[in-house]
Amino acid sequence: MISGQHYIGGHWCGEPDAANTSFNPAQNTALPWCFAEAGEAELHSLTEQATAAFALYRYVTAAARADFLDSIAAELQQRQAEIVSAMVQETALAPARAESELGRTCNQLRLFATELRTPASDCRLPALPERQPLPRPALRLGKVPLGPVVVFAASNFPLAFSVAGGDTASALAAGCPVIVKAHNAHPATSELAAKAIAAAADKTAMPAGIFSLVHARQHAFSEALIRHPAVKAVAFTGSEQLGMHFQRLIWQRPKPIPFFAEMGSQNPLFVLPQYLAQHGESFASQLAQSVLNGCGQFCTRPGLVFVPKGAEALVAALKQHFSQAQTGAMLTVKIASHYRAGCQALQQTDGVSLLAEGQGEETACYTKPRLFATSANAFMQQGVLQQEVFGPATVLIECADLTQMQMLATTLQGQLTATLYATEAELVSAQGLLNELELHCGRLIYAQMPTGVEVCAAMQHGGPFPASTDSRYTAVGSQAVQRFLRPLCYQNFPSQNGDTAWTGK
Amino acid sequence: MISGQHYIGGHWCGEPDAANTSFNPAQNTALPWCFAEAGEAELHSLTEQATAAFALYRYVTAAARADFLDSIAAELQQRQAEIVSAMVQETALAPARAESELGRTCNQLRLFATELRTPASDCRLPALPERQPLPRPALRLGKVPLGPVVVFAASNFPLAFSVAGGDTASALAAGCPVIVKAHNAHPATSELAAKAIAAAADKTAMPAGIFSLVHARQHAFSEALIRHPAVKAVAFTGSEQLGMHFQRLIWQRPKPIPFFAEMGSQNPLFVLPQYLAQHGESFASQLAQSVLNGCGQFCTRPGLVFVPKGAEALVAALKQHFSQAQTGAMLTVKIASHYRAGCQALQQTDGVSLLAEGQGEETACYTKPRLFATSANAFMQQGVLQQEVFGPATVLIECADLTQMQMLATTLQGQLTATLYATEAELVSAQGLLNELELHCGRLIYAQMPTGVEVCAAMQHGGPFPASTDSRYTAVGSQAVQRFLRPLCYQNFPSQNGDTAWTGK
Repeated sequence: MISGQHYIGGHWCGEPDAANTSFNPAQNTALPWCFAEAGEAELHSLTEQATAAFALYRYVTAAARADFLDSIAAELQQRQAEIVSAMVQETALAPARAESELGRTCNQLRLFATELRTPASDCRLPALPERQPLPRPALRLGKVPLGPVVVFAASNFPLAFSVAGGDTASALAAGCPVIVKAHNAHPATSELAAKAIAAAADKTAMPAGIFSLVHARQHAFSEALIRHPAVKAVAFTGSEQLGMHFQRLIWQRPKPIPFFAEMGSQNPLFVLPQYLAQHGESFASQLAQSVLNGCGQFCTRPGLVFVPKGAEALVAALKQHFSQAQTGAMLTVKIASHYRAGCQALQQTDGVSLLAEGQGEETACYTKPRLFATSANAFMQQGVLQQEVFGPATVLIECADLTQMQMLATTLQGQLTATLYATEAELVSAQGLLNELELHCGRLIYAQMPTGVEVCAAMQHGGPFPASTDSRYTAVGSQAVQRFLRPLCYQNFPSQNGDTAWTGK
Repeated sequence: MISGQHYIGGHWCGEPDAANTSFNPAQNTALPWCFAEAGEAELHSLTEQATAAFALYRYVTAAARADFLDSIAAELQQRQAEIVSAMVQETALAPARAESELGRTCNQLRLFATELRTPASDCRLPALPERQPLPRPALRLGKVPLGPVVVFAASNFPLAFSVAGGDTASALAAGCPVIVKAHNAHPATSELAAKAIAAAADKTAMPAGIFSLVHARQHAFSEALIRHPAVKAVAFTGSEQLGMHFQRLIWQRPKPIPFFAEMGSQNPLFVLPQYLAQHGESFASQLAQSVLNGCGQFCTRPGLVFVPKGAEALVAALKQHFSQAQTGAMLTVKIASHYRAGCQALQQTDGVSLLAEGQGEETACYTKPRLFATSANAFMQQGVLQQEVFGPATVLIECADLTQMQMLATTLQGQLTATLYATEAELVSAQGLLNELELHCGRLIYAQMPTGVEVCAAMQHGGPFPASTDSRYTAVGSQAVQRFLRPLCYQNFPSQNGDTAWTGK
């Protein structure tokens, strides 16, 4: 049962508007669910509730926050059937994918819970009253939460990067109340995830405004939300265009606040000749799967593949994979039409050719996978080749040799990932290429596809601009919590060596 | 011997301009040293050299970087007499202060060297090839330097926050080449510190462009420098006005970069009645010393002192301290005239009264210490009371009780520090005040003056805006290095468990 309401201050509220329906991309039809539209009243109430909740939540112990996160995971799993059903209808993603994403979302919440139960100990330096020429005071470096965090959910991970996803989990772990702006492409899935969080907050006695969900199709609401003085940080996953629009609004605030936007990536992949000679067939099928899986709707999908000359067998194998692939329904009509426009721009670019495209008809959300090829020279000259085309397409760039690959690597924009497929012998000679790639990415991968992001303490999911707005932070993994914490030094307190009521995490 | 030249790419260059002399604030006269003025040619050469140096320096081992920093400290100490003499002439600060600041600067360099020799181990997760449903790849989270860093030196710490100061030391420790824009108020001191760095770079065989010093009185040069694409991060210490001007320029770059500005603070200090009854006299003399020392030219000088009503004895003692104090020469004519204008604005503010001022005449750089008083109501109503007046002045705010103190604390801007003087018994009842202060500062202090910043692993010298541009970073202490590093995840490399040539710190 979908109410279509906002969840604010512990209550469901707002009148669903019959015009704001959810959409089924696979069937190109409206779903029987409609949603409220937030305005000024909701903005006021949301921010007031989040501020009030922060005054309490900043003193909730790390252990209690961990219980809250674990409880959210349990509540999500209890609602698995309902959530998977809504997600499949709203996104055209496969049930198996929805199930595995739910599992990943729960594991992500539990990862932060585990981290909270084994917190890094504060750096403590005892007083040195006899030190010359000056005594040293007792000092302790703690970390405290920034305050209410606004999360803009991603379209392409309706669970793992949405209402109860990584941004929400890391902000709650940090001690920050969360306001989620539901993604318009999966509002019912969002409501169900919010119900899980609401139930967990009730069961673990969290303050009422600890979590809010709000539906708003108008950008004006989002713009007012991120400009609101009560908001102390914003997390965003989406396009560079919208991310930078929000970034500029945040820069106009009287008091700037941290904004972390993960804005996608082309994920360049380099493959060397010996590797190709030894593993060409398996490489081709891994690459095709990485590009085609889930209609290519991953921010880590490899969109640029630098291949050595003479890779005819690879090209032939990929052509076969792509031409046999069927059209698939993307998440929204807008995403599908952006994809088609991006492919058209590539096709019209001098020096770029379409090698293969998939079967079926492109209507509404349905799009064909496409394989493009170009030369190293065209890559250097055509800026359009450095723009992400979000969807099931990739571009092969033929390179004369390793030196040319390294030269092309110098021109790359900031990326979430960069990948090298090489034999161990080739790896030695490719050191210069790796050195160059290191400058352009947040994750450097050897001989594995970049899709598939491990949620763990060693992950970096971010990267130099425009992959993210700040390469020093990550959206995935336990370090994601650092976006929402700041250090606070306590000097000379008598309770210095014990816990104090005003201690943050 | 002062050449007046820039130091770029391992060479001293540029023609000193006879009009660009250094200035003696104590004597209000020009010093016999004149300096070159950088323009487009220097900008080009500086950035090219720093970029070339980065390509080499990013692979210089942590141990070699540590040797470089230690060597800078040794070279500074070898030049102590010459540096102290130049600094005293250029800044009117006392020789003892110059000597202790030199010692602190050397200790700061050695702190980073020590940290580099005991690096935090990377987070490494081994592969789990048998894990279900999906194997885990081997992952290692390293940290890599951002690239060339521009440092804008502070006026008030001509050594510790200038050419060889904390920003330079932390950027070099991170693996970033440094370009220092010399502060116009101490160019000769800057040249001597640069000579120490140059000698150390030679002795430890660092790349030629690892460090540059440039003189430029025109803001246009600084503006072009921070907009230059080769620059990957900027550190600044100075006024909010100039800091935010630079921040806005950086936001206009096609690719935004990290900018850390420490922009000063009022450093509110609260004292409770029992504490005052027991330690009033010593508190008064500590406070007077903290405000008056070095002409009050510290970003951590307490500028707002919230006192309980009935603090007549404190007021009388402070009046005596301030009225007996002599005028002193501030760092520059501009700083002195800003100070006098700030005092005048306070004096003309309704509800603010001047309780005492020092002896002597206010001419050129010389200014009188001043003690102001106001009421809690006036503090609430007059925005001017929340503007830092940089110099030897402070404002007493009389509060009815602890509740009113806590209410006033809610109105405070972001601060570097906040301090509470209370007996241990009062500390318990002041928990609410401490909770509030925690939201507004980077360092919370019990019963010690905020001036005096320990350089160590537990320090936080930053704070919520406008104390700094990003409360998640510090300008002082070993964590300052984090401003210039970003995480990089290495996935599935065969050398995963050993060191690799492309490993950053």
